[in-house]
Amino acid sequence: MATAPPDDTRMRLHWSPRSPFVRKVMVAAHELGLADRIDRVRTAVRMAQPNQDLLPDNPLSKIPTLVLADGTVLIDSVVICEYLDALAGGGKLFPPSGPERWTALARHALGNGLLDILILWRNERDKPEGKRLPELLDSFAVKTRAALDRLERDIADISAARFGIDQIAVGCCLSYLDFRFPDLDWRNGRPNLAAWHEGFRARPSAQATEIVDA
Amino acid sequence: MATAPPDDTRMRLHWSPRSPFVRKVMVAAHELGLADRIDRVRTAVRMAQPNQDLLPDNPLSKIPTLVLADGTVLIDSVVICEYLDALAGGGKLFPPSGPERWTALARHALGNGLLDILILWRNERDKPEGKRLPELLDSFAVKTRAALDRLERDIADISAARFGIDQIAVGCCLSYLDFRFPDLDWRNGRPNLAAWHEGFRARPSAQATEIVDA
Repeated sequence: MATAPPDDTRMRLHWSPRSPFVRKVMVAAHELGLADRIDRVRTAVRMAQPNQDLLPDNPLSKIPTLVLADGTVLIDSVVICEYLDALAGGGKLFPPSGPERWTALARHALGNGLLDILILWRNERDKPEGKRLPELLDSFAVKTRAALDRLERDIADISAARFGIDQIAVGCCLSYLDFRFPDLDWRNGRPNLAAWHEGFRARPSAQATEIVDA
Repeated sequence: MATAPPDDTRMRLHWSPRSPFVRKVMVAAHELGLADRIDRVRTAVRMAQPNQDLLPDNPLSKIPTLVLADGTVLIDSVVICEYLDALAGGGKLFPPSGPERWTALARHALGNGLLDILILWRNERDKPEGKRLPELLDSFAVKTRAALDRLERDIADISAARFGIDQIAVGCCLSYLDFRFPDLDWRNGRPNLAAWHEGFRARPSAQATEIVDA
């Protein structure tokens, strides 16, 4: 009896429905028409508890981690996103060269770096009270405010360019603020950023990947 | 009287002699022959204390931050390194496409992600005793060991390819271990990685940028 041949175009993604970094990859995959080639493996990670099942693929125990059909392992969400972009023909979500590329990558780094801060902030905030460092919490708040004010100033420029990796990072970051920091009220005083985020949320790629508390 | 024309090819780098992420940029600049076009501005950053002078250039208060002559600000060490690579003609430290590119970028992400963990580990280790979380310290130790073991396994492959961004990240990471975690004795049981690191340390770009406690 014939068995189906192995499908060597499929990819395996260490995934969680609540990770904003994983979400970036899934938004990119949907934008590029590649989402149905990705097998998602639910993989929980916590900063204080390495996932022993994940360590062989990623010794840093972080998600997203993408395993290709040939066994190659790609780590770091922006690397995975650029790989998917190349797989889809290239130059779709990542400007290939020139000033547009550096501006998009630097803006991605701003959104992504803000996400890093929010993850650390949440970890610190959720510690037992005696273990928290108030100056660290204050520092995260100052940086978050400064980054959001910068995005409010620049969002017209950001959204004037083609939808790409920078907008994906900013959109996932703002949605994460809604999910984990609702009390921060980030829309207050930032009407342009708030309006842009409504447009992001309406995209099919964003709707298909919305973070849920599952 | 004539004054010298402004030099529009110069760049300004928010810099510190002890940041391993800044060092990656300076190693790349030396490898690419661009180091003398970079004006270094000494900029101290601490996780718990935003640098108010840096915030206008980088709201995340992180270094390296590169300011181009036209005012464009680039953030994130790997973005800056790839920009410098393009400025030097491209394809020197970053494979432009294909499997070599994704492998190099994923290995860079391993070295760079290990550096992220080491920075967090050092921050946690240096807290007042009652504020430290033992499970967090243990987690950092497990991930660091797993990442170093992976590098020991892969270093022959890594060093077989052209010297590039992956080797820069790994080299700067191992040197940072020597600088901040001498008791970890990372060479123990990892002879191939130790031997490779000697070669890295002997490069002029590494010698010109060695981390000093200044």
